[in-house]
Amino acid sequence: MSRKKIGVLLAGCGVKDGSEIHEATLSLYFLSKHDAEIVCMAPNKTQADVVNHVSEEAMGETRNVMIEAARIARGDIRDVGTVTGDEIDGIIIPGGFGAAKNLCTFASEGADCSADEDVSNLLQALYAARKPIGALCIAPTLLAQIFGKSLSVELTIGSDPETASALEKMGAKHTNAKVDEIVVDGKNRIVTTPCYMLAQSIKEVGDGVEKLVVEILKMADR
Amino acid sequence: MSRKKIGVLLAGCGVKDGSEIHEATLSLYFLSKHDAEIVCMAPNKTQADVVNHVSEEAMGETRNVMIEAARIARGDIRDVGTVTGDEIDGIIIPGGFGAAKNLCTFASEGADCSADEDVSNLLQALYAARKPIGALCIAPTLLAQIFGKSLSVELTIGSDPETASALEKMGAKHTNAKVDEIVVDGKNRIVTTPCYMLAQSIKEVGDGVEKLVVEILKMADR
Repeated sequence: MSRKKIGVLLAGCGVKDGSEIHEATLSLYFLSKHDAEIVCMAPNKTQADVVNHVSEEAMGETRNVMIEAARIARGDIRDVGTVTGDEIDGIIIPGGFGAAKNLCTFASEGADCSADEDVSNLLQALYAARKPIGALCIAPTLLAQIFGKSLSVELTIGSDPETASALEKMGAKHTNAKVDEIVVDGKNRIVTTPCYMLAQSIKEVGDGVEKLVVEILKMADR
Repeated sequence: MSRKKIGVLLAGCGVKDGSEIHEATLSLYFLSKHDAEIVCMAPNKTQADVVNHVSEEAMGETRNVMIEAARIARGDIRDVGTVTGDEIDGIIIPGGFGAAKNLCTFASEGADCSADEDVSNLLQALYAARKPIGALCIAPTLLAQIFGKSLSVELTIGSDPETASALEKMGAKHTNAKVDEIVVDGKNRIVTTPCYMLAQSIKEVGDGVEKLVVEILKMADR
């Protein structure tokens, strides 16, 4: 198959206020291992909050989502608002609270959340072009917000009943999955996996991420 | 072999002012994959600087090395000053400028650099107990500072002549290595690999890190 260009949509840098670093880095690693070209991107806007990852308390600082996400991307990152659907063959969205704070507002508003407009526009363009979308951990909530009302997308966030019920309230169909499983919605070309919604170790995260990456690359090729 | 407990010494979060995130995360991933227990640690002190990873300019902010490193460790991190050599079976030090700014001062002072005292104490205790020490990318400069004067440690930082010559000035023996190679100093139980001193992709970083992790675990068992 020809070399695919896959977007990785980041939401900051760190599980409590940005992208979960292990999920993001392992997405990049397995994309690279399976010979994909990578395009990192993030919203160029202020983070919802900044959390001290030792004390878990808010730090009262201001940080920019894209500038912090650039730490994961080693500086090679783009403002998601400048990326068009025809530039990439698919996209992967790591989890971490940033996905539910900076890409959409699920962390604070639950099933009534809204999505970042640039993110929503790009994901809808990719969907319309039948390009695959992968989401890890809590990031499927973003897909439920964007696609749940019009499409019966099938997603997993693992097996947490409260989050699963919020996904269904947004119109998605939730399917329980184990940590090393992926849920494939072939009709809508959406792939999800639980990662740290369930994982007890970074090894377990890697198992799910590699399966998801392989499936996204397979879908991007047909 | 029995399950080994391996320290991962972090220096912040991000290649330009902290630990290189891919090297740190892949160290954790391969340690987990090869069934090691992990103890993350970092100096509890102010970072040398804070760098915007998009513009590469200093941000004029103040951040704490351990609090930022906790983003990589998902909050499960200890002040390196509280960790004793008998608690762990070996240690791995990822690269990134933080290793040469916050663990030692190589980035600003070259061969005349000094090392963080808590870091130096722990590494000397581990060496005295014949426990293996692994260092990635630019982190071998820290080992040259601590061990070069008294021991003829053999290290690699890849093949950059200027950095190699600084290592030798500090008393170490430098051996060129390719990105997927490790240099094993069996006598001193020190293992090093070039990572992003040479890597063109995160896949290449993974190749070197996995080899180093396997060697460290082998050494820790004998």
